[in-house]
Amino acid sequence: MRIAIIGLGLIGGSMGLALRKAKADLEVVGFARRRETASRAVELGAVDRTEGDLLAVIKGADLVLIATPVMAMKEIMTRIRESLDEGCIVTDVASTKAQVMGWAEECLPSLVSFIGGHPMAGKETSGIEAADADLFIGCTYCLVPGRSATKEAIDRVEGLVQQIGAKPLFIDASEHDMLVAAVSHLPMVISSALVSMTTKSPLWDDMSKLAATGYRDLTRLASGSPEMSRDICLTNREFILRWIDEYIEEMEKFRHMISEGSEELDEAFLQARERREGWLGMAR
Amino acid sequence: MRIAIIGLGLIGGSMGLALRKAKADLEVVGFARRRETASRAVELGAVDRTEGDLLAVIKGADLVLIATPVMAMKEIMTRIRESLDEGCIVTDVASTKAQVMGWAEECLPSLVSFIGGHPMAGKETSGIEAADADLFIGCTYCLVPGRSATKEAIDRVEGLVQQIGAKPLFIDASEHDMLVAAVSHLPMVISSALVSMTTKSPLWDDMSKLAATGYRDLTRLASGSPEMSRDICLTNREFILRWIDEYIEEMEKFRHMISEGSEELDEAFLQARERREGWLGMAR
Repeated sequence: MRIAIIGLGLIGGSMGLALRKAKADLEVVGFARRRETASRAVELGAVDRTEGDLLAVIKGADLVLIATPVMAMKEIMTRIRESLDEGCIVTDVASTKAQVMGWAEECLPSLVSFIGGHPMAGKETSGIEAADADLFIGCTYCLVPGRSATKEAIDRVEGLVQQIGAKPLFIDASEHDMLVAAVSHLPMVISSALVSMTTKSPLWDDMSKLAATGYRDLTRLASGSPEMSRDICLTNREFILRWIDEYIEEMEKFRHMISEGSEELDEAFLQARERREGWLGMAR
Repeated sequence: MRIAIIGLGLIGGSMGLALRKAKADLEVVGFARRRETASRAVELGAVDRTEGDLLAVIKGADLVLIATPVMAMKEIMTRIRESLDEGCIVTDVASTKAQVMGWAEECLPSLVSFIGGHPMAGKETSGIEAADADLFIGCTYCLVPGRSATKEAIDRVEGLVQQIGAKPLFIDASEHDMLVAAVSHLPMVISSALVSMTTKSPLWDDMSKLAATGYRDLTRLASGSPEMSRDICLTNREFILRWIDEYIEEMEKFRHMISEGSEELDEAFLQARERREGWLGMAR
């Protein structure tokens, strides 16, 4: 089996490492925009070899994995469409799914099985240097089969997901986007807004000395790739806006409870802790 | 030297462990409201021994460290005031300082040196079981000398702070409260509000399966002690409200940029990352 990975950043690189670790009888061919990235991917063992050209990398591939920033995906689909082998599987790793599913429908030939993917894993660091063969172990891996996807192709992708240690979850594209907007994209905005507000304050010089692990953790997502964050906002705008509104409303409620010094505040903190602990217990 | 620790939770217990590790010629006597906490503190080596009574624990102490939730501190000061030895040092570890300094001024005799303290360290877990001798290594430790504190007492506390591996920072109580409201108390509210909003959603069952490390980190502070969170809000209300307002304004700005899909959004994510990386570089 030959797998072509287009885009060798944190996720593309980690997929290469994880797949090669899990399956011996596999050839992984990679493509990266920048030559240095491609050679580092080979050195790190994320791919067997690279090609300097999009059409060369997908040649003879049984599965093409698109792991570029989401806003680059439509162009890539358009450029590779004529050269994909019949029966080939195409998948992606974008954080938003409805837009990508639409592009796949529009751009890819119907003899290709498109199965959207989104591993719920990440790191604050980006790029091939941060790639990690164990990044997907235990994580939920969303799968959204396209209309033309065959049963066989779906099974194959599901099998690969399991082989890298992740838990496949079949989900509708729009439902996916709505849910991750709340638990992943909103936190990213919250994190960046906190950095933005504090660091532009005239008090930041003094504040920065007192900022500790709490601040560090709350702002971790602000260190993610800015290009990826922007792309997520542009391709999942409506749901993100909806959750930002709900979140601001919730902050207003906390503001009110603090201002009143009301007993509901006790209850609110207590409940937040219990519910988070419940989630952690379930997630383990 | 004899040190009395009142309150043997995460911070009180960690102080005991850290002080005993750093200094051999030291007796640490502890007091906890609950008997099981006291005996665990002895088992874990956080204290040499405990006393079941507040006045017994401070008897003959050169330094009294109050490590209870902040709302209990005034009563403790009132109860121990008559029994403190002349020249005794009293300090605390509360997350807010102006209120505590006011209580000390009001309740403690002037022949005692009160020096407010706040180690900028913590964990999402609370209680004696989470105590850690290395909790304070490298952390900023705020010190706010009271009006009656002698030079000698201040030097002594500064020395102890250095001995447990922390970095003393002398600061005004009100300035402290304003700054930590932004980098520590606001994040705590942000975190709890995120848990509250997501977990009460009718979609939480589905959402919870997609919540991953980003959600986990952003909500970490929601797992802190609810009593402590409530006390912080009640004793630092004005500054916290002020920063909540600024934060909501910042969220509104992000909302606007996302809604417009404006190029400023790129710049905002990029700047947030750069500034956080700058802070991390400085904090290391």
